Amino acid sequence: MQWCGVCVSCRTGHFNQCEKIELLGFSAPGAFATYAAVNEKYCWDLTELRKVYKEEDQLFEAAALMEPLGCAYNALFVEGGGITPGAYVVVHGAGPIGLATIMLAKACGAAKIIAFDLSEERNQLALAIGADYGINPDDLLEKGSCTSDFVMSVTDGRGADIQVEAAGAASQTVSQINRSLSSHGTMIFLGREDSSASVEFDPLVTQANRLVGARGQAGHGIYPNIIRLIAAGVIEPLKLITARYRFDEVLDAFQRSTLRKDGKIMVRIS
Amino acid sequence: MQWCGVCVSCRTGHFNQCEKIELLGFSAPGAFATYAAVNEKYCWDLTELRKVYKEEDQLFEAAALMEPLGCAYNALFVEGGGITPGAYVVVHGAGPIGLATIMLAKACGAAKIIAFDLSEERNQLALAIGADYGINPDDLLEKGSCTSDFVMSVTDGRGADIQVEAAGAASQTVSQINRSLSSHGTMIFLGREDSSASVEFDPLVTQANRLVGARGQAGHGIYPNIIRLIAAGVIEPLKLITARYRFDEVLDAFQRSTLRKDGKIMVRIS
Amino acid sequence: MQWCGVCVSCRTGHFNQCEKIELLGFSAPGAFATYAAVNEKYCWDLTELRKVYKEEDQLFEAAALMEPLGCAYNALFVEGGGITPGAYVVVHGAGPIGLATIMLAKACGAAKIIAFDLSEERNQLALAIGADYGINPDDLLEKGSCTSDFVMSVTDGRGADIQVEAAGAASQTVSQINRSLSSHGTMIFLGREDSSASVEFDPLVTQANRLVGARGQAGHGIYPNIIRLIAAGVIEPLKLITARYRFDEVLDAFQRSTLRKDGKIMVRIS
Amino acid sequence: MQWCGVCVSCRTGHFNQCEKIELLGFSAPGAFATYAAVNEKYCWDLTELRKVYKEEDQLFEAAALMEPLGCAYNALFVEGGGITPGAYVVVHGAGPIGLATIMLAKACGAAKIIAFDLSEERNQLALAIGADYGINPDDLLEKGSCTSDFVMSVTDGRGADIQVEAAGAASQTVSQINRSLSSHGTMIFLGREDSSASVEFDPLVTQANRLVGARGQAGHGIYPNIIRLIAAGVIEPLKLITARYRFDEVLDAFQRSTLRKDGKIMVRIS
Repeated sequence: MQWCGVCVSCRTGHFNQCEKIELLGFSAPGAFATYAAVNEKYCWDLTELRKVYKEEDQLFEAAALMEPLGCAYNALFVEGGGITPGAYVVVHGAGPIGLATIMLAKACGAAKIIAFDLSEERNQLALAIGADYGINPDDLLEKGSCTSDFVMSVTDGRGADIQVEAAGAASQTVSQINRSLSSHGTMIFLGREDSSASVEFDPLVTQANRLVGARGQAGHGIYPNIIRLIAAGVIEPLKLITARYRFDEVLDAFQRSTLRKDGKIMVRIS
Repeated sequence: MQWCGVCVSCRTGHFNQCEKIELLGFSAPGAFATYAAVNEKYCWDLTELRKVYKEEDQLFEAAALMEPLGCAYNALFVEGGGITPGAYVVVHGAGPIGLATIMLAKACGAAKIIAFDLSEERNQLALAIGADYGINPDDLLEKGSCTSDFVMSVTDGRGADIQVEAAGAASQTVSQINRSLSSHGTMIFLGREDSSASVEFDPLVTQANRLVGARGQAGHGIYPNIIRLIAAGVIEPLKLITARYRFDEVLDAFQRSTLRKDGKIMVRIS
Repeated sequence: MQWCGVCVSCRTGHFNQCEKIELLGFSAPGAFATYAAVNEKYCWDLTELRKVYKEEDQLFEAAALMEPLGCAYNALFVEGGGITPGAYVVVHGAGPIGLATIMLAKACGAAKIIAFDLSEERNQLALAIGADYGINPDDLLEKGSCTSDFVMSVTDGRGADIQVEAAGAASQTVSQINRSLSSHGTMIFLGREDSSASVEFDPLVTQANRLVGARGQAGHGIYPNIIRLIAAGVIEPLKLITARYRFDEVLDAFQRSTLRKDGKIMVRIS
Repeated sequence: MQWCGVCVSCRTGHFNQCEKIELLGFSAPGAFATYAAVNEKYCWDLTELRKVYKEEDQLFEAAALMEPLGCAYNALFVEGGGITPGAYVVVHGAGPIGLATIMLAKACGAAKIIAFDLSEERNQLALAIGADYGINPDDLLEKGSCTSDFVMSVTDGRGADIQVEAAGAASQTVSQINRSLSSHGTMIFLGREDSSASVEFDPLVTQANRLVGARGQAGHGIYPNIIRLIAAGVIEPLKLITARYRFDEVLDAFQRSTLRKDGKIMVRIS
């Protein structure tokens, strides 16, 4: 995320809502370049990570994973208001962003983490990264159950304190989340989604729940704090990687991503 | 709101989410009784208000208005997270709760307040109480416009920081609010509503907006703070009253309330 | 406040803690110049204020007052965590910054405001701007009382929710504030002070009070929100001005400021 | 902590500031009784912990440790405002409360934890429980250094985000903390202390730091969340125990506690 630093949002400290935002690889060139020249203010010192990663390849992989971790951090700890230690957390969608969310929730005081994904591989990965449950919603449906029932059962009828929509499937997840949030629970929408879904207001009002949108990873001390968490060994981002490709295989990498079975697919430029 | 003080919600300080909540006049008797015996913890000392109201009748009217004011206070300052001084506030629905919201917003640093109601009387009342605009959404529709266009225009294209749904018409207001919130804006649902409405996630996520449900007025220092605001002359709740009935006219009072043209309709027990 | 936008504090959104901060008139030239060239990001559009101020002189005076208002805004609403509507607020020191604090507290939901200053003129000004009490601490001492006794008495023994130290006299005020904060009360230090004072920890711990330092007015939407408050007529900053000097009288202006009897002393460059 | 539920503090949800608070073992009988009858609202269901503790003795030990854990939870996550994941945390004093603080900080996203205690045993225990450093301040003094220098060095000159005073030695720790907090850092006073110490305001103001007092463990979901954290295996409170005594040895237990070398000393009633 490249913020201008001059618009009203930036001057308010809301860099992720920059009115002239540029995204490397989307609106600005550089995503698969060997080098990309960027403004000093988008660069972070990784020296501290050398303690953990002796190999340069690993260091760069960790660096590349800060973007999804940063989005998850922003969603959970900035826009979402943080995880109350002891909270029950549900993550819908165990792709790279969902898995990063699980990793951070596990490291930051969640007492139970429930992951839902349609892919068995991703559910296994979720468990390996810290989830207590990795469940396929279709399996629940087959048994005449659903994700909201599962969440209510696992939380002794109290509901989950935080539920993150990282599946890009709001039309299916929102009504389930709506029914399985705890009192003062938070539903976080993570990542851009061009869709809408019906929200029931009675549980929202009765329980004083909230829905929060989140995007980006700029500002708020997000990157320096993630660097600290990795340097301290509190999180190990390389666990998110399930496939590696050379640059000349980049199209295969994109192809593979369409299977929606992986964690992070990494392309090595050199 | 009569909270038990023992359930997990109560012990967390979330009295409005009490798991055994009783409501005077709904689940517990007492709403139109001359006297009602209630637990000490539901009673507040009104001595301070005698400075403002010399007549006992006025004192009791002010006391009776603390409930809608308390709901508005809870929505704006507890669940809604407060009004950043200088904020633009929109209130959909200028009934008793909406008007109480306008009154508090005006007293607490809102820079512009826009009220929308279908009743001309209520829009006039909104203006008298502190709104900068009191607009009939149907008038906007006739001109080919809508509430979201109006809000965007009046806020120089930035959107409103806070929008309160107090109209009980979520199916019509939510899509309008969705399009006219500022970055980091908050949509507050105030009052119980057995309905649902479609929410668009793209603006929610892009702007890091939030939707918040609110109900009740217990706890959080709400009543003592409202007593202070009235005692200090910061707000004058009696301005909310547009009709007064004797107890033997109570059915007329209910009849009148169905017109949806009034502020608070007051029934005097004795 | 001129923040770099590149250091870690700036990238976190904490512009007032910029590690390379420059202050116009202190570390950077420009305070009494006819024109000063500054970076775009330090400029704000005042068009909205033309509705209120038809004369250019008034417009510039209002603009010049945004700095003390911004410091007060930052202290009360950013670092201080906001004024709970209905709060009792004490301001120690009714110089320009203290008066700006009173003005904002009055506009944003304080139920009682108590000002303490050694100057009768300033106490009168405090009352004119919105304080409920403007008291000389020495007068209290003569009667065998003190500011903490006065605060406890005026707040019915509950103490004040917020107390702002804007007197630059911490060695005298802190012990008084310490004894007259309410439960969960906040003591805010506003403005730079090269001193120390003894803090008693028992009341701090028992009541879960907090002490907060605040400086600066950059970021956090402070300036745009103050512009909105002025444009809406919620606050009228020109009331803070008690003396005006031409530029060739600037030394007289400085001389007068040493009397510590004024609100804002304004020097007109042209 | 036995709160009344009726006073203004309790009705605000601030049970730890109850105006009629009773403490089991201090103002109310029961601390070393075999059974104590208490109000339902002070009781929590421990069934969930049976998954972790098969032995009843262990279960009761874990239960007994919720009080110090609750005080630490309240200090860090309620009054202190939470740990930003990636934060550097310093704990002054590694007695039972300090160790509980370290245990929670480690489980909830702290990137580095520095413990200071005069006892070698406690510093070792701090390390075993999750601290990255367990240092004797006197050893630093011998080398011409001090705790603030150590903190600044270990944090690359940025200072610690949170520093907890759990040593009951404010007169020695405060000046050190004052000089080694990060920008927007928080100093938390945990536990009652009848003393005062000199606070320097310049760093407080320049860095927008805060001092916070905390006591108690009632309300705010503290106990149910700690039960969840233990049940989930996120924290293991029994690690805090360094000595066990039978009830007929209770005076030896008290004697031992005066050595200030232990974690929690446990007395088994039966």
